[in-house]
Amino acid sequence: MTEQLLSNFKDRTEKVRNYISNSQFGQKLSPDYIREGAQLYFSRGGKMLRPAILLLACEAVGGETDLAIPAAAAIEMSHIWTLVHDDILDNDDLRRGGPSVHAYYKEKFKGLISDDELDEWSRNTAILVGDIQQAWAVSLMTELDDRIKPDLFRFLIKDLTNWAAIVLEGEMLDVEHSKQNFDKVDEQMALDMLIKKTATTFGFAGKFGALIGLNQLELDNKLVKALEDLCFNAGIAFQLRDDGLGVLGNEKQLGKPIGSDVREGKKTIIAVHAYHQANADQKKLIRSVLGNSDADFNQIDKVHKLFNDLGSIKYVEDLASNYIKKAKTALDILPESSAKLLLSQWIDFMTKRMF
Amino acid sequence: MTEQLLSNFKDRTEKVRNYISNSQFGQKLSPDYIREGAQLYFSRGGKMLRPAILLLACEAVGGETDLAIPAAAAIEMSHIWTLVHDDILDNDDLRRGGPSVHAYYKEKFKGLISDDELDEWSRNTAILVGDIQQAWAVSLMTELDDRIKPDLFRFLIKDLTNWAAIVLEGEMLDVEHSKQNFDKVDEQMALDMLIKKTATTFGFAGKFGALIGLNQLELDNKLVKALEDLCFNAGIAFQLRDDGLGVLGNEKQLGKPIGSDVREGKKTIIAVHAYHQANADQKKLIRSVLGNSDADFNQIDKVHKLFNDLGSIKYVEDLASNYIKKAKTALDILPESSAKLLLSQWIDFMTKRMF
Repeated sequence: MTEQLLSNFKDRTEKVRNYISNSQFGQKLSPDYIREGAQLYFSRGGKMLRPAILLLACEAVGGETDLAIPAAAAIEMSHIWTLVHDDILDNDDLRRGGPSVHAYYKEKFKGLISDDELDEWSRNTAILVGDIQQAWAVSLMTELDDRIKPDLFRFLIKDLTNWAAIVLEGEMLDVEHSKQNFDKVDEQMALDMLIKKTATTFGFAGKFGALIGLNQLELDNKLVKALEDLCFNAGIAFQLRDDGLGVLGNEKQLGKPIGSDVREGKKTIIAVHAYHQANADQKKLIRSVLGNSDADFNQIDKVHKLFNDLGSIKYVEDLASNYIKKAKTALDILPESSAKLLLSQWIDFMTKRMF
Repeated sequence: MTEQLLSNFKDRTEKVRNYISNSQFGQKLSPDYIREGAQLYFSRGGKMLRPAILLLACEAVGGETDLAIPAAAAIEMSHIWTLVHDDILDNDDLRRGGPSVHAYYKEKFKGLISDDELDEWSRNTAILVGDIQQAWAVSLMTELDDRIKPDLFRFLIKDLTNWAAIVLEGEMLDVEHSKQNFDKVDEQMALDMLIKKTATTFGFAGKFGALIGLNQLELDNKLVKALEDLCFNAGIAFQLRDDGLGVLGNEKQLGKPIGSDVREGKKTIIAVHAYHQANADQKKLIRSVLGNSDADFNQIDKVHKLFNDLGSIKYVEDLASNYIKKAKTALDILPESSAKLLLSQWIDFMTKRMF
């Protein structure tokens, strides 16, 4: 994102970061290595896009930023615990430019735990860390000021559990797709997974922020609907872009080696689209490289070229543009404000050439 | 427990079971195998002691049973999700007389997933199931009638997250102790683990039930304190008994082979006490059998005999009696009621010879 937009986001997200850092729940965690693991991703920085969006949605309806900070902290912590468990599921050793939680424990306990037990110990510890963070997220949400109306408070807590059910279904679909043949996964399935696993969080952030800003449980309020739509659709575009970068991005953009998502055999929409367009020889190439952890740069490059030749990159860019359009339509409904302007800049950023 | 006591509990717990069965959150879960896994332990029966205690605590302060049912359902579901993840951590394939969640998936997907990926797939699916159940537990708690005062509602949601932090610390300590030498784990550490991992849930059940029954956020209310104390201390005695049965019980009591906890090398208080009383030869025997998954019945029997000879069984029985005494002192504070009578019978049941 542009420096200026990032800096505007940062003003807000630093408040959220401090709020989480100072949270009693986190400070009381024991033993020490659990507390450290639970703070790991969060302390590493990151753009904190989801809490920023939540706060902007609150401001966009005329609400007070500070009122929504516990909810912004809760959505960030919710996102984090799913990452910790997702990293276990995907055997991902890197996250936000450092070791993932289980990889962190593997390093930390090397020499203290016998080598043949180290993997299991580290994974088990990371499972518990994610569990604790899920509870922490709910705890943060309960700290919403008691000026929040009781029925709204109740709704927010409950809806955070609905959010979890959707995201976890998305994670399950991701694992499921990774085990299936390409023939069995179509574009609709890949899109459904992407929406549930990742984009849905942006929609919830928009809805939560707007409801708190209004301090009314008005799910049909046109501003609430507009902000939910805006964030959900922009979130899909954002994740399509993220997905594309995962396939095509360079090491700096990704924080991991080029072609990682290809080597892992992720059923991204790009890959699925390409596979269904491909002739028999091209299908064979895709099957031999995707999911092949030993694939070399030459093979990765061939697949990238194929994705381009088959129009799959263009296809996903067009798909993203459609969601961007929907987000802009929703944006138009909002009254003018500096928050609206920032949301608009966030959307604009994604309309540029994506990958 | 006696048939009569069980039947009195059952009247209450059937309501809780139905409440969970009919829960929208559970019915909406997708894909199907996730919904099935999430319902698995719960559908298998079990005594549902924790929700029963919560409802009795509500009644014991003159509260209406039905008001507390969502909280009773939440405490049961909370207990269940920790079991699902604990079974992964312990590699336990049995739970409540059937396969544990990960073992269930291993069976279900055999032949559909390649053999070398089956373990990982099953474990990953079970991680997500436990995560979903944690969200489900919170969702159930949010369904407390809106007659519950807002400040009490907020407290209950937040305190459920405190509960999770304590129980997960207990689980971590359990994993930690299992990797440590006997010399490094003393009785106090083993007791601390037992209290945090398991007994603490009973204390929370007593507190939650009493607060809901009074419908007042009065943590210093003497009835609330009495019910929390009663349930916490009786819970410790109950878990000491459970621990003892795990070491000494027969296959029917355990639902798993005799000596399982010995073969797993669990640092139970019995085992830790015995180890610290033992001479060099006896220590050697304990070290060679505990944690030896191939230990035969003869070896298990020798260890049982040693636990008896070293006074460790008696030691744990006396320890449990002390907690029972504390529970009874708390019981005396309660006004007469049929709920008080049932709580008293629950305590009495544990004062009989334990193992």
